[in-house]
Amino acid sequence: MSKAKRVCVIGAGPSGMSVLYHFHQLKTQGKEIPEIVCFDKQSDWGGLWKYSWETGIDQNGEAVHGSMYRGLWSNGPKECLEYPDYTFEDHYKKAIPSYPPREVLFDYLKGRWSKGDLRPWIRFSHVVRQVTYNDSTDDFSVVAKDLTEDKDLPPQQFDYLIVASGHFSVPNIPSFPGIDRFPGRIMHSHDFRNANQFKDQTILVVGSSYSAEDLALQTLKYGAKKIYCTYKTRPMGFKWPSQIEEKQLFTKIEGSTVHFKDGTTADVDVIILCTGYLFYFPFLEERLRLKSTNILYPPGLYKCTLWTESANNKLLYIGMQDQYYTYTMFDAQAKWAVNYITGELKLPDHETMVKDWKKWVARMKELKGCHDDIDFQTDFLLDIAKDANYGYNLDTAEEFHVWEKHKQVSILTYRDQSYASRFTGTKSPIHHTTFMEALDDSMQTFLATKQ
Amino acid sequence: MSKAKRVCVIGAGPSGMSVLYHFHQLKTQGKEIPEIVCFDKQSDWGGLWKYSWETGIDQNGEAVHGSMYRGLWSNGPKECLEYPDYTFEDHYKKAIPSYPPREVLFDYLKGRWSKGDLRPWIRFSHVVRQVTYNDSTDDFSVVAKDLTEDKDLPPQQFDYLIVASGHFSVPNIPSFPGIDRFPGRIMHSHDFRNANQFKDQTILVVGSSYSAEDLALQTLKYGAKKIYCTYKTRPMGFKWPSQIEEKQLFTKIEGSTVHFKDGTTADVDVIILCTGYLFYFPFLEERLRLKSTNILYPPGLYKCTLWTESANNKLLYIGMQDQYYTYTMFDAQAKWAVNYITGELKLPDHETMVKDWKKWVARMKELKGCHDDIDFQTDFLLDIAKDANYGYNLDTAEEFHVWEKHKQVSILTYRDQSYASRFTGTKSPIHHTTFMEALDDSMQTFLATKQ
Repeated sequence: MSKAKRVCVIGAGPSGMSVLYHFHQLKTQGKEIPEIVCFDKQSDWGGLWKYSWETGIDQNGEAVHGSMYRGLWSNGPKECLEYPDYTFEDHYKKAIPSYPPREVLFDYLKGRWSKGDLRPWIRFSHVVRQVTYNDSTDDFSVVAKDLTEDKDLPPQQFDYLIVASGHFSVPNIPSFPGIDRFPGRIMHSHDFRNANQFKDQTILVVGSSYSAEDLALQTLKYGAKKIYCTYKTRPMGFKWPSQIEEKQLFTKIEGSTVHFKDGTTADVDVIILCTGYLFYFPFLEERLRLKSTNILYPPGLYKCTLWTESANNKLLYIGMQDQYYTYTMFDAQAKWAVNYITGELKLPDHETMVKDWKKWVARMKELKGCHDDIDFQTDFLLDIAKDANYGYNLDTAEEFHVWEKHKQVSILTYRDQSYASRFTGTKSPIHHTTFMEALDDSMQTFLATKQ
Repeated sequence: MSKAKRVCVIGAGPSGMSVLYHFHQLKTQGKEIPEIVCFDKQSDWGGLWKYSWETGIDQNGEAVHGSMYRGLWSNGPKECLEYPDYTFEDHYKKAIPSYPPREVLFDYLKGRWSKGDLRPWIRFSHVVRQVTYNDSTDDFSVVAKDLTEDKDLPPQQFDYLIVASGHFSVPNIPSFPGIDRFPGRIMHSHDFRNANQFKDQTILVVGSSYSAEDLALQTLKYGAKKIYCTYKTRPMGFKWPSQIEEKQLFTKIEGSTVHFKDGTTADVDVIILCTGYLFYFPFLEERLRLKSTNILYPPGLYKCTLWTESANNKLLYIGMQDQYYTYTMFDAQAKWAVNYITGELKLPDHETMVKDWKKWVARMKELKGCHDDIDFQTDFLLDIAKDANYGYNLDTAEEFHVWEKHKQVSILTYRDQSYASRFTGTKSPIHHTTFMEALDDSMQTFLATKQ
């Protein structure tokens, strides 16, 4: 690098932490790295993996970031998100089952993040309020608020901005005829914290994606009486137990009675809106703002990472796509970003970059279902990993295809299956308790050997 | 006025609407008035009085403004908030009982607001993102976001800024040992929407102010099994029915068991944090920001309205004090603000203004209880009303003193009492149903004659 650069990273979850991790790797190799400041509005690292009991608005008056709940177990095999340079066996000193609960995954993440001295780069309890790109000086002005001191900081200048603040935090809240007079509880999955409180209740789950699927299972597992899942376009289509029933979207609510399109009705205690999340970056000035729905390749991003629409190739986004791959994909994006910023990696010209992302977006539009999706994201991942000289093969398409089949066979037992690590070759042990019977989500119980 | 001025009003609740109302009054009198733009992030007027079923984050990704619930009835006599130039009898064409439910109060407000052509001044679904005061030009730059279009507007310049966005919207969320492992529901009173959903449940109400008092009553009224109210400094001290019990602040929570300071424990289903609200104006630059707790006279405001700490007497706040008086007090503040901006009212020098608010703050610190508080706020109201040439006597101290006594006699029946209007002289009729028996909060039922 010609001169000392300054990089701002927004968010200290898996995506942002991968950026810090790869900068630190270069540093330990004796390379010159930029000055890094990472802002996170939470009081500790982890992003969504940091559980908090808070809902709605947090202790600092800010929107709660987390959408995490007690009892969340990985909904994909851990072998599909394992870091090649830090395996689960490295962390736990033994092989562990394929579908761990949140605390076990979070502990693993923290293990990798703790390999380097990354914490000093992070300003916790600092929310980014406002980012503008300065055309004349080709840099960013960032205003952050110190939430602990209740004080806006003066603007700081940065050469690069990396947005890694996630897109599963700001709930999408549709309305429905009669919902304003519904006498029961209405909530978004974002505010779901534990399933115990729905024991013996009848629940309407609105939606048909991962949140709907998992909250139907969660509430069933902890004793809900009946769960109606209602879909707009197509049902999830799993072989549900008798307590879970899929219905086409309801037409109205009268009192506590939900009227479904097929003419049937149900009286429900609770409505859980599993209606997804918004891409919401109110802190970015308009022209820097990625606007998208949750898709496999949001337009405007070269390698799904570099913003090509403004800001002179100084703005990057990590983890903004819909995800089969998670930690490993964020890691490859992060390494790509780090290589680019440190000058290891050269960009093609603007036209080529735009043509490239448009090619991916065009292909995305032709995808015909989950197996196509998996292959698409695998191809993207391998492409960016190669460009970033990632050095490991991150392809776990086969595991994802098998996982989808397991889910089709039984949504209740797919988490009881076992996979082999691509990096250690070890086949995971079967957990001592099946998912539907495992009510204790603690790390201690999960790691305990069968009694 | 020497030249056309521009005034920005933030918030279209009772405070902001009173500002618009008084500007409109001048206009109808043929006076020259400034250009007025009022931003409100909600889709309609009303502020807290606009009920929404949403909680936490709203349909636009913004923090939900409302803290309103179904079943809320006025907790003070309507005769203490009646507009002298638009009485309840003017609106309803008959006398109505003293403690109306929300819809009846809101309809009354809308009646007064509809007397003038005020709506064209309001930009609904526009959230103010950023306000800076420009020293060189002695004006404000205001950036608002059009939530419907999902677009930040270019900065607009204004000569005066009136902040009327309320201070009962952003919940104060304390933490407690063990709360993160509590298996039941945890919520702040801000997210309370109806009491039906707490039927047969055992509730811990944390707090001892109006929210705690009213949610204890509400949940009891709609069938909660038992309500423990827990206080930090002193109990509410009402003669509660047996289902409501006051306890000194709990020391910890273990599972669903709450341990109180007196050594007793209780298993609860729900924790409702009635722990108040934050003064939170993230959109204002630091030096413009009123920082206060909920007190009868926040420091820094001449006549509790004009910000004396910066911005050259161009920044005003309405309704930022703790409140016995509400609509009428906001109205007097609004008229004062309007008279000041249009040049009718002259300010004393800076030193005199600071001395004046310091005198009020000093007196506030000596207040010894609710009857002192009432006299204090009455004196403030009469002072600002006089300064504003308000033209009516707004003193209802006597009614407030009687109201406090009624509450001490019975927290269950105080709302069944009746008061006389100061402006029409009419004594309100007794409602056909007592408060504790009135489960239907609709305007239609409230206004119906006894069957």
